Amino acid sequence: MTVPTTILGQNQYGKAENRVVKITRDGATHHIRDLNVSVSLSGDLDEVHYSGSNANVLPTDTTKNTVFAFAKEQGIESAEQFGLALARHFVDATEPIRTARIRVEEYAWERIATSEGEAPHSFVRRGQETRTAQVTYDGSTVEILSGLKGLTVLNSTDSEFWGYIKDKYTTLKEDYDRILATEVSAVWRHGWNGEDDASAPDWQSSYEGTKALMLGAFAETYSLSLQQTLYRMGSQVLEGRPELEEIRFSMPNKHHFKVDLEPFGIKNEAADGAVYIAADRPYGLIEATVLREGAEARIPLDLTNL
Amino acid sequence: MTVPTTILGQNQYGKAENRVVKITRDGATHHIRDLNVSVSLSGDLDEVHYSGSNANVLPTDTTKNTVFAFAKEQGIESAEQFGLALARHFVDATEPIRTARIRVEEYAWERIATSEGEAPHSFVRRGQETRTAQVTYDGSTVEILSGLKGLTVLNSTDSEFWGYIKDKYTTLKEDYDRILATEVSAVWRHGWNGEDDASAPDWQSSYEGTKALMLGAFAETYSLSLQQTLYRMGSQVLEGRPELEEIRFSMPNKHHFKVDLEPFGIKNEAADGAVYIAADRPYGLIEATVLREGAEARIPLDLTNL
Amino acid sequence: MTVPTTILGQNQYGKAENRVVKITRDGATHHIRDLNVSVSLSGDLDEVHYSGSNANVLPTDTTKNTVFAFAKEQGIESAEQFGLALARHFVDATEPIRTARIRVEEYAWERIATSEGEAPHSFVRRGQETRTAQVTYDGSTVEILSGLKGLTVLNSTDSEFWGYIKDKYTTLKEDYDRILATEVSAVWRHGWNGEDDASAPDWQSSYEGTKALMLGAFAETYSLSLQQTLYRMGSQVLEGRPELEEIRFSMPNKHHFKVDLEPFGIKNEAADGAVYIAADRPYGLIEATVLREGAEARIPLDLTNL
Amino acid sequence: MTVPTTILGQNQYGKAENRVVKITRDGATHHIRDLNVSVSLSGDLDEVHYSGSNANVLPTDTTKNTVFAFAKEQGIESAEQFGLALARHFVDATEPIRTARIRVEEYAWERIATSEGEAPHSFVRRGQETRTAQVTYDGSTVEILSGLKGLTVLNSTDSEFWGYIKDKYTTLKEDYDRILATEVSAVWRHGWNGEDDASAPDWQSSYEGTKALMLGAFAETYSLSLQQTLYRMGSQVLEGRPELEEIRFSMPNKHHFKVDLEPFGIKNEAADGAVYIAADRPYGLIEATVLREGAEARIPLDLTNL
Repeated sequence: MTVPTTILGQNQYGKAENRVVKITRDGATHHIRDLNVSVSLSGDLDEVHYSGSNANVLPTDTTKNTVFAFAKEQGIESAEQFGLALARHFVDATEPIRTARIRVEEYAWERIATSEGEAPHSFVRRGQETRTAQVTYDGSTVEILSGLKGLTVLNSTDSEFWGYIKDKYTTLKEDYDRILATEVSAVWRHGWNGEDDASAPDWQSSYEGTKALMLGAFAETYSLSLQQTLYRMGSQVLEGRPELEEIRFSMPNKHHFKVDLEPFGIKNEAADGAVYIAADRPYGLIEATVLREGAEARIPLDLTNL
Repeated sequence: MTVPTTILGQNQYGKAENRVVKITRDGATHHIRDLNVSVSLSGDLDEVHYSGSNANVLPTDTTKNTVFAFAKEQGIESAEQFGLALARHFVDATEPIRTARIRVEEYAWERIATSEGEAPHSFVRRGQETRTAQVTYDGSTVEILSGLKGLTVLNSTDSEFWGYIKDKYTTLKEDYDRILATEVSAVWRHGWNGEDDASAPDWQSSYEGTKALMLGAFAETYSLSLQQTLYRMGSQVLEGRPELEEIRFSMPNKHHFKVDLEPFGIKNEAADGAVYIAADRPYGLIEATVLREGAEARIPLDLTNL
Repeated sequence: MTVPTTILGQNQYGKAENRVVKITRDGATHHIRDLNVSVSLSGDLDEVHYSGSNANVLPTDTTKNTVFAFAKEQGIESAEQFGLALARHFVDATEPIRTARIRVEEYAWERIATSEGEAPHSFVRRGQETRTAQVTYDGSTVEILSGLKGLTVLNSTDSEFWGYIKDKYTTLKEDYDRILATEVSAVWRHGWNGEDDASAPDWQSSYEGTKALMLGAFAETYSLSLQQTLYRMGSQVLEGRPELEEIRFSMPNKHHFKVDLEPFGIKNEAADGAVYIAADRPYGLIEATVLREGAEARIPLDLTNL
Repeated sequence: MTVPTTILGQNQYGKAENRVVKITRDGATHHIRDLNVSVSLSGDLDEVHYSGSNANVLPTDTTKNTVFAFAKEQGIESAEQFGLALARHFVDATEPIRTARIRVEEYAWERIATSEGEAPHSFVRRGQETRTAQVTYDGSTVEILSGLKGLTVLNSTDSEFWGYIKDKYTTLKEDYDRILATEVSAVWRHGWNGEDDASAPDWQSSYEGTKALMLGAFAETYSLSLQQTLYRMGSQVLEGRPELEEIRFSMPNKHHFKVDLEPFGIKNEAADGAVYIAADRPYGLIEATVLREGAEARIPLDLTNL
């Protein structure tokens, strides 16, 4: 086929959303890891686009098989370690593949409490946030992003909003005591580049520490704007976690409007404990990156979650 | 308008999904209730269907206002108490309305943990299950259903499936050690009929106790079928909660299939800790009611969740 | 196991959401049927609940296999015919099974238009409504419900709302020219009971005719309330389709609120063509059954869609 | 506040998902535009992040008001024109705002067919794909992306997959007659940069032409890989629409697996018309950009839909 006027740009392919559950047995006590793994490969793949020749294509079905085989053979210590093992394999083992990007969602489970204590092999899904990770490997360098999504938080006071620009379309009243609520999506980048495996972060404690710092900063910031709260969250994370270089947040302002009950002769003031309507749409949407000084901004702007 | 050949059957109307958030302040310590309230009214409403006359129609907008006003005036002790106050109001205050059915979803929040302990007015949404309730009042009798949905549980062993009918379309292999996982939806009916407010159950402890019994029975049943596990869950709930008359479950069998890794020379046995693929569709779906002996079955079969 | 105080109530089980796609070839011209089939069986199944004995259980996996085998062996003429063949099979072929209920969703496809006319084997999914059907067979009688969901319609005028009850919580202003929009879910019951296959309705033309009558009535009714519009839709359907006995609708009032632009000195009147905000929640919800005179109401109230 | 070690990176904010419906009246004949508009602004906004000062912040509530006011004052000719008017307004009218990015989803409606022809002011939502647009304006240059999502297409033959790499994890069988199905998300970039309004494309016919070329190429390509089909779709679009510079696709391979009916003695061959199971997860995911030769690739890789 002749292709006179158009050319192929960036491309990638793979098997998305492999739902891997790995049980590890320690006698009667079992452990569970519950992941959703998406593989994306790129490399010397022009020909499959131009002519349909699959000579350089490792089938997406094979990438799926590899995910499950690795889960058994190597186990799953963490989303990041597992993604890294897969990424290295695809690039190192298959010549035309130059870059592999592995994305992982992880769902947390906790043990069921019974009359006799924690059940050894019975679990209830935690709900709350989804943990995420993305590992990219190009044959030499590793980049690891970690993150979370679906973490919904709310301050019932200590939030104000005033002093903003007023133009001809402004009707909003200033507010000195409002609810501040958001559903946090965050992606953060580790400084570790894969050169020395011994110096890799402890991914589990890095995740837990980052989440704790984020929640603490949300709770402890007396907020004059959601942007300020976001920045404090990012700043506290970077100050407390030296292994991180940057963090990007996408935080919808989940509006809770105080309901006007005056027509019914009812006062509804924040100071007395008020009734709010939780609105769906539209919503404010605040997105920003916070960087360690001197760090390069490498998290894509549109990558609001993994 | 003449209506020669058709007539109106059962009908109801109201405002659905009023998202009410109520903050109660106890000094710096705040409490939150987060509900989704749906109102459904029926009564002397033929004319609005036949001719469009709204003379007997309380607008759905008014029912919405009432929900928010009641949340402020009466507070929200529990989903059931709040639903009951609303149901009684609509029937007692508006002549053409004969029956009110209030449905409530409730979302749980927990306090954010900070370096200084539990935050007084900062919350993170718990995730996990949604609590539900339905209150129906017809001017004399009250019926209260409570329930939950989205409670996902998993046993990584102590589940078998064998000894079933084999016909010409059967290919399934018997399994002596499988994962049993489901997302529980349950609706249970209280015996209390509203005649004596002093004898009403403690709705909060009733809910917590019911959920705990359900989880405990799931964990402690060595299962030969999901039906058996379901029945044990219902049975334990009714034995432990005398205020309940019946409970109905809808439990999808969230299949976790052991992955065949033999083509890669890898053994993948449950006994060693195995790798599973969590499947989406199709899924087994088990639905059943468990009743206290002598109780009447009144939960509708199609009311698999509220 | 002794079961002293609790007993089993209504129960059913089966494989839900079997996604069956059947291609029929007529030379180069292909035809497609795209269904989601859910099987639900009940019968002599106490023991599996009480003791876990599966002796009377046809595995849900077998019911899945049967769906796909029947799709190939018998073909899929319509959702109703296919559901009926399956329901009869399960009850007639498996002794402990006394009742089978088959639910079907169907997704419509249309041929892609190319420069050379309609493509013979290339399709684009239509979107718009999902067609539904439910067949129940108990060994002697057949009941067939058909339906649709997700049919979103809007009248930009010819809708008023006034003359309603005003109580102390009423703030709504009367409106003499509003948008009326809803997302129709409907379930209708055929009079045919399965005794004489030759007299069965033409399911395809019955569906198309019913949908057309419903849409026509929505468009042509000058509406004083959504209830009135609903009743006219049901009434027109029953008058035009003698094979039907009753129809039940669930119609959310998808509110479109005229935006108040007065603060900006802009008039926003319906008569001039106005700007509206389409609201999400809360929404009015209108549900009602319309019956042919003398017909029995048999569609469950909570079966708002299939 | 001192911020010793962290700094603010890229940031943007605005009101997302403003659901604007605009009715235009032409006598009894009405026209409808149904949009979901998201505003995102950036500029001189460091201070609101560092200190919470809102002095440079135009409230998201104001941006919402502006969307609705513009819909009335200027009307909505197309998603692109409307987005452009808004983007220019925000940057030109508000000093600290340097860049505005407007995203639009549009939902299509068609007139209801009645016994008297097309209804003048009654509509049914089309379903099928969602049209999208993104307009970015930085005070001098305009960039317009258009797109669609949710366009599901299927070829029931003329698709093969063979000749791929086989490694130790490969079990997939080669296939010479398979279903090829995908849900197309596409984003394309217009060459027009906003300098000369008179030379702007006709947005409506550009959209319709692009969609038609895409569908035609999907139908007419005998496919050896989904990548090849994707490239042909992009190539045909760019060859037929000179106003476009590049197009990026995200196309999940919606697997339809031929069901193995041999255990039941049933042959299930594509050539005879086969039965398939439509799988949910995992799925192949193919993403690529096609460019006009010499054009710059500017659509972000992670912007798989708008």
